[in-house]
Amino acid sequence: MRDFSQDHHWLSINTATVRKQWALDGIIDQCARRGIRAISPWRDQVAAVGLDKVARQLRDTGTVLSGYCRGGFFPAPDAAGLKAALDDNRRAIDEACTLGAPCLVLVVGALPGALEGRAAYKDIARARHEVRDGIAASLDYARSVGMPLAIEPLHPMQAAERACINTLEQALDVCDALDPQRTGALGVALDVYHVWWDPKLQQQIERAGRQRLLAYHVCDWLTPTRDLLNDRGMMGDGVVELRKLRGWVEQAGYTGFSEVEIFSTLDWWQRPGDEVLDTCIARHKSCV
Amino acid sequence: MRDFSQDHHWLSINTATVRKQWALDGIIDQCARRGIRAISPWRDQVAAVGLDKVARQLRDTGTVLSGYCRGGFFPAPDAAGLKAALDDNRRAIDEACTLGAPCLVLVVGALPGALEGRAAYKDIARARHEVRDGIAASLDYARSVGMPLAIEPLHPMQAAERACINTLEQALDVCDALDPQRTGALGVALDVYHVWWDPKLQQQIERAGRQRLLAYHVCDWLTPTRDLLNDRGMMGDGVVELRKLRGWVEQAGYTGFSEVEIFSTLDWWQRPGDEVLDTCIARHKSCV
Repeated sequence: MRDFSQDHHWLSINTATVRKQWALDGIIDQCARRGIRAISPWRDQVAAVGLDKVARQLRDTGTVLSGYCRGGFFPAPDAAGLKAALDDNRRAIDEACTLGAPCLVLVVGALPGALEGRAAYKDIARARHEVRDGIAASLDYARSVGMPLAIEPLHPMQAAERACINTLEQALDVCDALDPQRTGALGVALDVYHVWWDPKLQQQIERAGRQRLLAYHVCDWLTPTRDLLNDRGMMGDGVVELRKLRGWVEQAGYTGFSEVEIFSTLDWWQRPGDEVLDTCIARHKSCV
Repeated sequence: MRDFSQDHHWLSINTATVRKQWALDGIIDQCARRGIRAISPWRDQVAAVGLDKVARQLRDTGTVLSGYCRGGFFPAPDAAGLKAALDDNRRAIDEACTLGAPCLVLVVGALPGALEGRAAYKDIARARHEVRDGIAASLDYARSVGMPLAIEPLHPMQAAERACINTLEQALDVCDALDPQRTGALGVALDVYHVWWDPKLQQQIERAGRQRLLAYHVCDWLTPTRDLLNDRGMMGDGVVELRKLRGWVEQAGYTGFSEVEIFSTLDWWQRPGDEVLDTCIARHKSCV
């Protein structure tokens, strides 16, 4: 297992972590200044600054990506909606290529409209079929341009609104169905926040192996958790066994970045960005 | 599949649903007055009225139980705590016998202290071992007095604080390990709120079968869900496919009550008890 205690060589910052403090160009500068080598930006943050400008800044600062957030949201109530989702994912893949991302992270979507509190239908099996079809269609294009797709299983508490792929096992079943040769074109983004509770986690990480483990995200699970989306904790403040889980993914062959992704309305989004990044570095050494 | 649309013959009320409105003796009266044949009371509600008094009132009103809530909370940081949990479960089993419950529902517990925000340890595998040992020990006594134990898998969002058994598959693995003969002494309480999201739900309900399906709870999953514990929805107000799920459990051989269990700080606990019970009856006919 790699030693993270001496430096932050393998730390990446998911830029949602400081999205309230700085625009993306500011985040890139702040990370580069601290020797943080990698980030994982969100599409809206990239769009706000400008794709080409971000690509140039990444080159100028020597910053690489650990992923690009995010494609997905495939289900829709009608054919036009399904088509629009595929078009949007194609654009996300193109952007990921422009930015040199190692993978496009997929938050696959769930019951269309549920995010707005008005689900167009309740049939989660239908949503799962639409997700599978959407990934299959996007995978054709992604392969043609060499951009791996990383399915992110989301916590079951987000199954209605954000992603109906909710366990690593389920994500790997989709991978095996659509990419049985394990070519590296399709895999998973494993976020400890979403999967830490899973009794089959170690077994399924072994199953995933190096070919399927495309990204690894860390934060912590707080007790109590006060919000189903935006109450993620800083590493060390919750109950996730971060060292044990990283041991499992490294044992399975993962050698990439460990990406800190914290959405925190009640805490970290309210603190100065400098404090957040410095704490990420310190906790990455002491807890991850 | 049974027709629930004409009457509420198979409706049971989990008494937490109206715990803010009435004490248990009032709840039993209100249910009996409406022709609700069954309830599932909580231990603290029984204790507040008195065990013998409740038992007598049940007999006098012809009310039966669909379950007794609840045993469990097995993990502890030390031997004294583990022993205290077993003693408490023994008392719960005795109370269930006195009340003529068909099963004692087990909310098995998780990281000790996490419910108070101070987890004594983070090793969820250890908690799961302690749960298994606790169920095994309690099962010996429960068998001797003829009280079936029903493991309730809780939603993964409650894995740290309330129950580290989080999927039906995991619960059934414990059942198979401790009661391989499927004697009826050990099974599951299936609450749609906790399991509706599970991609393996139908398959695992089939696996459970009549011998393992000891209780069936209904409510609904709201979008958005504003609280991780107390924001359950009334049947029909959320996204759970209630008819489909009941079809699966009946197909697997379940013929018991359908128990309404709604914790709702923000809504139903604030309404008049009469309205809550009348709505339960109406929605049980139209949505369950």
